[in-house]
Amino acid sequence: MHRIKVRVVEDALDANNTIARANREDLDRAGVTAINLMSAPGAGKTALLERVLGDLGDVRVAVLEGDVEGSLDAERLASLHIPVVQLNTAAGFGGECHLDANMVRSALPALPLEEIDLLVIENVGNLVCPAEFRVGEHARAMVCSVAEGEDKQLKYPLMFRACELAVVNKIDLLPHVDVDLERLLANLQAAHPGIEHILTSARTGEGCAGLREWLLGKVARSRAGERADPRADDLAGARV
Amino acid sequence: MHRIKVRVVEDALDANNTIARANREDLDRAGVTAINLMSAPGAGKTALLERVLGDLGDVRVAVLEGDVEGSLDAERLASLHIPVVQLNTAAGFGGECHLDANMVRSALPALPLEEIDLLVIENVGNLVCPAEFRVGEHARAMVCSVAEGEDKQLKYPLMFRACELAVVNKIDLLPHVDVDLERLLANLQAAHPGIEHILTSARTGEGCAGLREWLLGKVARSRAGERADPRADDLAGARV
Repeated sequence: MHRIKVRVVEDALDANNTIARANREDLDRAGVTAINLMSAPGAGKTALLERVLGDLGDVRVAVLEGDVEGSLDAERLASLHIPVVQLNTAAGFGGECHLDANMVRSALPALPLEEIDLLVIENVGNLVCPAEFRVGEHARAMVCSVAEGEDKQLKYPLMFRACELAVVNKIDLLPHVDVDLERLLANLQAAHPGIEHILTSARTGEGCAGLREWLLGKVARSRAGERADPRADDLAGARV
Repeated sequence: MHRIKVRVVEDALDANNTIARANREDLDRAGVTAINLMSAPGAGKTALLERVLGDLGDVRVAVLEGDVEGSLDAERLASLHIPVVQLNTAAGFGGECHLDANMVRSALPALPLEEIDLLVIENVGNLVCPAEFRVGEHARAMVCSVAEGEDKQLKYPLMFRACELAVVNKIDLLPHVDVDLERLLANLQAAHPGIEHILTSARTGEGCAGLREWLLGKVARSRAGERADPRADDLAGARV
């Protein structure tokens, strides 16, 4: 008699994660590397994408733009002549404060997956909930602005723990804000030991090449058949 | 025979609003005016409170400090020698992204309501969900930083619609950011026609007297028995 071992995988009961896995399978099948880009409102995600996405060599990119309302950022990015799909979360009363896997799934048919290599998912501006919902991405990156102060890493730690890259943006403002960059970077390491960071100014362009290289590196690793950051699969307990 | 008219008040079924009303009754009974102060992360709520709460004349103030984790802001405000109660929302996986009425209710017994006139509830930094949850406040105010850009009013409209005051902070950064203040203020009026605004720099102190006057005006109106902003009661559809 065989002993039957029943393993209850709680994660499998999580509808969001189930859909995130389906998204990931579709992306992998199409050879698309997906990056979930998050930040607080106004940290500069769109401005950074404007700086880097127009110049990715042979890497073909599209953007899935998440906003509560409107299509301002999608319009800005469309000027780069890349496919941009707008996803609005305002169906509820005040709008959802994050993208979830099902929202992203609803947008996949509108994206030319067979014709792109990289999909940047620009999440809703929020330092809390977006970090809790996997959407099928291969890696997560976040942008924090030095204008937000040096303590956000300690107050919203999950966002920093959930990401493998922190882009520290608006460094051109450092002379004009009471922020100690060393302390900010120390708080970043305290929140997520070993996290990569890149210093940028989307306004002046400084450091933006580093973000471009990071994105290209992600695509190159996927092309080489390297497994995506396992942490992108291991965010236990993500909400439905 | 009397005709019985049954009116189903959907709002009454909303547990959050029921608790918010109970909070409001307790606050009114104690003669306390409560302000729900909201913003994106790093817009400067705490820095503004540091500027204004130390100098309110005979108005006695306490702060209820909402954060996902930690007590950094509460420690900053405690130096003003006012009662500060910290409320952390991190009980869940990644922490709640807002305060709700029940969280505030859990903190009321820790506050010296009989000994204060003004309670400032500093919400979690987030431009979406905090606007959807009444907590029993008499008025809602929000802070936006010019460093966040000029379009947040269009992208997160509920927050601006839900508040009767927008504090436009970090105006000392205006020479250093690509933001058109006139357009920002126009977007603010587009999101919420007639909304009051105050221009401030918590860093230099400029304009902070306006916020102090606004807070004192709210307390004076409550003392005069004037009804609070009816809009504080009329946020239909708030989530549970």
